[in-house]
Parts: sequence; C-alpha cells; structure tokens
Amino acid sequence: MLYTDLEDILGKVRASLEMEDVAGAVAAIEALRAPDQADLFHELEDEHQTALLPRLDPEDSADILEELEDEDAARIVATLTREEAVRIIDEMEPDEAADLIGELEPEHQEYVLAKLEDQAEVRPLLLHPEDTAGGVMTSEFLALGRRMSVADALAALRTWKPDAEDIHEVYAVDRFGRLVGMIGMRQLLMQQPELILNDVIDPETVFVSVAADQEEAARLMSRYDLASLPVIDTQGVLVGVITVDDVIDVLEEEATEDFQRFGGGEPLDRPYLESGVLTVVRKRVGWLLLLFITETLTGSVLRHFEEQMAAVVSLAFFIPLLIGTGGNAGSQTTSTIIRALAVEDLDKRGLLRPLLHELMVGVVLGTILAVVAYGRAILWGTGEAVALTVAVAIFAIVIWANVLGSVLPILASRLKIDPTVVSGPAMSTLVDATGLFIYFTVAGIILAI
Amino acid sequence: MLYTDLEDILGKVRASLEMEDVAGAVAAIEALRAPDQADLFHELEDEHQTALLPRLDPEDSADILEELEDEDAARIVATLTREEAVRIIDEMEPDEAADLIGELEPEHQEYVLAKLEDQAEVRPLLLHPEDTAGGVMTSEFLALGRRMSVADALAALRTWKPDAEDIHEVYAVDRFGRLVGMIGMRQLLMQQPELILNDVIDPETVFVSVAADQEEAARLMSRYDLASLPVIDTQGVLVGVITVDDVIDVLEEEATEDFQRFGGGEPLDRPYLESGVLTVVRKRVGWLLLLFITETLTGSVLRHFEEQMAAVVSLAFFIPLLIGTGGNAGSQTTSTIIRALAVEDLDKRGLLRPLLHELMVGVVLGTILAVVAYGRAILWGTGEAVALTVAVAIFAIVIWANVLGSVLPILASRLKIDPTVVSGPAMSTLVDATGLFIYFTVAGIILAI
Repeated sequence: MLYTDLEDILGKVRASLEMEDVAGAVAAIEALRAPDQADLFHELEDEHQTALLPRLDPEDSADILEELEDEDAARIVATLTREEAVRIIDEMEPDEAADLIGELEPEHQEYVLAKLEDQAEVRPLLLHPEDTAGGVMTSEFLALGRRMSVADALAALRTWKPDAEDIHEVYAVDRFGRLVGMIGMRQLLMQQPELILNDVIDPETVFVSVAADQEEAARLMSRYDLASLPVIDTQGVLVGVITVDDVIDVLEEEATEDFQRFGGGEPLDRPYLESGVLTVVRKRVGWLLLLFITETLTGSVLRHFEEQMAAVVSLAFFIPLLIGTGGNAGSQTTSTIIRALAVEDLDKRGLLRPLLHELMVGVVLGTILAVVAYGRAILWGTGEAVALTVAVAIFAIVIWANVLGSVLPILASRLKIDPTVVSGPAMSTLVDATGLFIYFTVAGIILAI
Repeated sequence: MLYTDLEDILGKVRASLEMEDVAGAVAAIEALRAPDQADLFHELEDEHQTALLPRLDPEDSADILEELEDEDAARIVATLTREEAVRIIDEMEPDEAADLIGELEPEHQEYVLAKLEDQAEVRPLLLHPEDTAGGVMTSEFLALGRRMSVADALAALRTWKPDAEDIHEVYAVDRFGRLVGMIGMRQLLMQQPELILNDVIDPETVFVSVAADQEEAARLMSRYDLASLPVIDTQGVLVGVITVDDVIDVLEEEATEDFQRFGGGEPLDRPYLESGVLTVVRKRVGWLLLLFITETLTGSVLRHFEEQMAAVVSLAFFIPLLIGTGGNAGSQTTSTIIRALAVEDLDKRGLLRPLLHELMVGVVLGTILAVVAYGRAILWGTGEAVALTVAVAIFAIVIWANVLGSVLPILASRLKIDPTVVSGPAMSTLVDATGLFIYFTVAGIILAI
C-alpha cells in the first residue's frame, strides 16, 4: 500500500516548517495524492495548517478539505481570510462544498455563498438532510436535451469542465428537465454522429428520489452495479447524481454504525481517536445503564430461588457458565440475522424460515453442549442429579437463546426499529435473567427441591 | 426500490410455466434487470431453471449466471448440454466466467475451456486464489501502446466491444506490456487528436500486485476513490483490472465476515438462508465449545471463594449483574476498536492512545455505574458493606473490561490474527472469570472475610 511511507514525508514537512521553509513543505505535500495530503495535513499543528493551506494550489487545498471531516475542514476555513476561503471552496466539488459550508458560522456562510462562482450549483444542495439521497448527491452532471444529436452531445462533453474527474454518463432530459434516460460515454462514442440522443439512450434508467434514505441509494447502486445514480425530485426533474465513491463511503459508514451498535453502544459519527472521552462515554452510558437495570432482574430471580440455592450449594457454581453460554449462543445467532437483514439476504416479512432454521441449529448445538456440560460436571465431582440438571438446562437455554436471537431482530425491523438494538450485550442480558429462571425451574423438577 | 414488485412477476412466471407457456415466462424475465432476473430465477424449481435458461437470450442467461452464487450457477450449468453451456459462458465477463468454470467438474471444465471463444482471456484468471487481487480482476481492459496517437486511441475505443458496459479508462503500456499510466475516457476525448498517449496519460496511476489480498485492493480503491484499479504482475506487466462493482462486493463480504466473527462464529461464506443447519452448526460449535471451556473457569473461581460466598450469601445475588455489566462494557469497547482497525482509523502500531482513551472512558463509566449499583444495592436492602463491595467491584471491573477490550484486538492484529477473534462473546467470557476474581478479592478486603 502506498500510504505507509507517509510518516517519513510528515517528518520532512515538519522539519521544513520548523525552518520556516514553507515552499519546501508545499512541494512535499503537492507531490502526494489527495487522501494522503489530507492525512498528512491533519497531523500538522493548527498554526501550520493555517499557514500552509493558502500557499498550496487552490485545487490541492480543495482536495484536502474534501478529504477531511467536515467539522475539521470548517474549523480550518474559519482561520483563513474570507477571500482565501472563497478561492479554495470554489475548487471543491459542489456536494463537498455544500457539506463544508453547512458547518460554517451563519454570517461566514452567507458571505462565502454570495461570493462563490458555483453558487447556483451549491445552494440547492444545502436544502437536503445529510443522510438522504439529496444530501450525498452532487449537482455536477451533464444533462442534455433528448433532441440533441450525438455529435452535439460529444461536443458538449468536450467543453464541459467539471471539478470531479470520474463522471462517465450523459443524462437526457425533456424540456421540463425531467429525466428520460442515460447513456455511458463509451456507448455514446460508438454511435452514428447524426442520431439523436433520444434514440440511443437507455430509457430504463434506475433512479432514486431526492428524499430517499442514503442507504437506499447505496443499496440500489450496489445491487445494480451502477457507477452513478440519478436523483430526481417529486416532478421527475433530474436534480443531481450520486457517484460511486460517495456510495462506498455510505456503505462503510453504515457498516461501522451497525458494528458499533451491535457492540452495545451508539455510533460515534466520527473517527475513533477524534472522538473525545466524554463523547465516547455519552454514546455508551445509556445502553450500559439500561442493560444494567435489566440485568438486575438476575438478582430478583436469584432471590426468588434462594431456598433452592441454599439447599444445593453446588448449583451456584454453574450459574455464570450457563448464562454465559446462553449469551454466546444468542450473540452468534443475532449477529448472523442482523447482517442478513442489512445486506437483504433476509426479508423482514419472513419470520418462520429463520426461526425454524435457528431452532434446529439450537437443538443440535444444545445437544452437543449438554453432553459436554454433563461430562464436565461429573469430572468436577458434582452429583449425577446436579450434572443432569446442568445438562438439561443448557440444552433448553441454548435453544431459547437461538430463538430469541432470530426473532427479536426481525420483529424490531418490522417495527421500523434498527435491528442492531438487539445487540450482543442486549442478547446476553436478556438470556441472563431468563436463563436463570430456566435453570432453577429445571433444578426444581429434577432435584425435587 | 424497484425489486419489491418481484413477487408479482414471480407469480406470473410460475403460472406461465405451469401452463407450459415457456415463451411467456421468457418474455416476463427478459423485461427485468439482471440482478432481478437472477433473484427471480433463483426462486424457481430446478427443472424450470434448466428448461428456461437455454431459451433466454444468451446475454441474459450470462447475466443471470453472473449474479447467482458460483456454486448455484455451476449446478445449473451442469444440467445443460455442453453446447448450451459454452454458448452462455461465452457471453459472461471473463472474471465471472473463470469463477464459474472453477466450480465445474474437471472434465466438464476442460471441455468448456477448450470450446470457449474467449479462452485466452479466461484461462489466466483461473490461476489466482479467489481472495487475491488476481482472483477478482477481469482480463477485459483496453491497453494501448504508449506511442499511439489520441485519434488512434479513440478509434480503438470505438471498435472495442467488451462484455462489460462500465469501463471508462484506457491504460497505456510500454512494449513489454508494462503499465506506464492511464487516462479517463472523457479526458481522452478532450485532447488534441495528434498528441501521443504518453503525453496525455497520468503516469502516477495507483495499482496493486496480482498476489495482493482482495481487501488491500478494496481499501486502495475506497481510499483513492477509484472507479477501476489496474493489477500488475511481478514484472510490472498489466494483467488485469478490478472494477468498482467487484470492490463493493468485497467490502460488503468483509464487513459481513467481521460481523459474524464478532458475534462469536465463523463466517458463513454463503447467504444465510442458503446455509444448511449443519453448516451453521459447524461454523459456530467450535467457538461455542472453546468459550464454554474457558467459561468453566468461573466455576473454579467460585469454588475457590466458596467460604466467602457461604459467609455472606447476598454476595451471590450480584454475580450475574457484575460480570454481565463487565462483559457489556468490554463488548462496547472491542466493537469500536475492531471497526476502527478495519477502516484504518486506528493503526495497529499505536497501542498507547487507544489504551489511555479507553482507560479514561472506563473510569468515567465505572464511576457512574458504581454510584447506580450502590444505590440499587441499598434499595434492595443489602447491607452497606456489601453495597460498597459491589460498587468498588463494578468500578474496577468496568475499567478492566475497557482495557482488555482495547488492548486485545490491537495485540491480535499485531500478531497477524484477525482482531475479531476478540469478539463480544470472547470478551464476556474473559471478563466473567476475571471479574469474579476481582469481585471476591474486593469482598475479602472490604468485608474482611
């Protein structure tokens, strides 16, 4: 990978800056690719960032701001003169510029917008919530009239100079600006120059509505292998395009959120090391307390069965083992189900198939663990009756955990709750209290206490 | 989203097939997009699949086979005549064709390869392990000599007819076939026709080695926002190109694997509902047993502290609460750290920053939980000394869990072990035994037992 040499270059840039050799630092940075420039830049002291940014080529500065987190970029922009800020933001892709401007102070925002060359492209993008298709689309696309000839379309392509490099589709619109189809650049190049666009475009274009969730846009692009996805408003008018690089970011972001939620915390929104201690605490403490309160049920169950515990003390030794194993089985199940829902291998409408599936898996796993647990209990010198109790209880608990782990995420999903609320920790906690209840009920029957 | 109407169309196709109206079924399927065709096709009975596939346009059949899981596609191909199989496979993209052929019986494999028109493109792709850059690349790319003029390059583009639609880059090579740079199609279109490629290409092209892990290729493309990534051999010769749709699949696959591992099982390799009960059992039973054996340590710890438990019976009521909460805190931490490592927000070389970060988070969370636990214990009518024991123990256990949860995944990663082995269940299990030890040690000091 290319970016592991960054530390060396960072050292050189720092040394140049110490010796007030800004030109040397600029040269070292401009030799890098944008994401590497941004990573390196991010490591520099604040005053160095402010000194360097206006000295770089505005296109490079724009690339760096695009790669940084929006809040960091806004913080740096606030330290520049307004003229410098406008000059750099004008080189940014409109969707990235809109995200950045959204983070600026209101009066700074208005000033920058008013002076921006591209303001007609940027302003409409400010209207859409960040996590919708409108929030991730760019207004930089080529829409041509459906009656235009292929030759004229190619000529338009030649003179078009977008800030982004990787746009490879041409969209055809009717006289109201409504999307009627699209054609890839290579296909366009292969057509007879005198044909009109309307006859060469693919009219079955996949599109998404501007208000749709960004995840829906990402799923469509991933499913249909699209390099770009047109975005339309309620009238069918083409208002933007989502490019595949933004979609990869969306998919990674959603996977990160699912992962963190599944671990039992709220998503951090920002890269880990940039999330302060109190932010991390705030994202975790709610769930931790809620689970703690739920977990106190275990105390109530144990009090309820106090006599049984006192009668057969060795029952207590198996408590963490039984409920821990139940939690593990539940966590295995729920992680599989949650991910299957996220990638649409499972449909939230079908409950029965996954339930039966996990029931059977639970029976097999429960049987295996029951045999092992019985053997282990006998080896520990536990009496046969208690060993049998442990074996039967673990069989029942594993099945119970698998059923809960399959049903709960699907039910959550049906209730339009994110299924990751049934996280691993939530599963363990639910299985702890109910598992104890199962254990002592089995003990009551087998040991007749 | 478009694909929710599929059930209706599936009903119509089934009805047509019942009435032996194959042409009607073909018409209904051919109106769909490839991923939808594949989903619908997958739901049909085996004999219907075999009857339909040769009746569809070979391009559509090829698209369907591309979208299906390789094993399913190979199973269907095995039911076709050899001529039908060759005709369809010839329309597939070379990388997909190679994956499919790799799943066929050896003698079928040789027959198909020998008859294939594109065999020169497919054969080399069979050599690379599935999870490497070579395993996901396609051999369908346009490599032109560096001395060619722009006009000739555009002419070459016009006559090139790849099976895939979305290729937008032209690669320039020297006379040994070594990659020297690339240019996007739109940029090429904007150049003076008499210039030579060498003067207009970007020589700083990001590339990946054919033997590199597929995840490395995906990371490079995601980091540098690439729509395609050239793949070179040890001599620098351009041997293939990875396209962004394959990379999205790789990223989703890796996220699914991480998710399932984090839940405490081995990844399933296949969509959930297509993994048989015994497969799911096999992927889970190893971890479940290993964690079970580790969890038996809790029994040993409890035996060790049997006297203390007998002396103060109410200590037992708090056992599941304390160790459960420790497991939850550990799981929150480890999920954040594992994901940060996966998306490279964290570097495995830096252990100290995340450790200090989680130590501080642990102190704050531990303090909050200690206060709540103390209050809850007093409300339950537990004596002050036991309440204090519970509070101090939970403070220590939460800090301990956060430290373990941050350090273990990073250490695993350094030892080149997948950090997801430190899954939520593994964390809970580790914290259970050690947490009990902490609890009874604190009890020994405070209660002087």
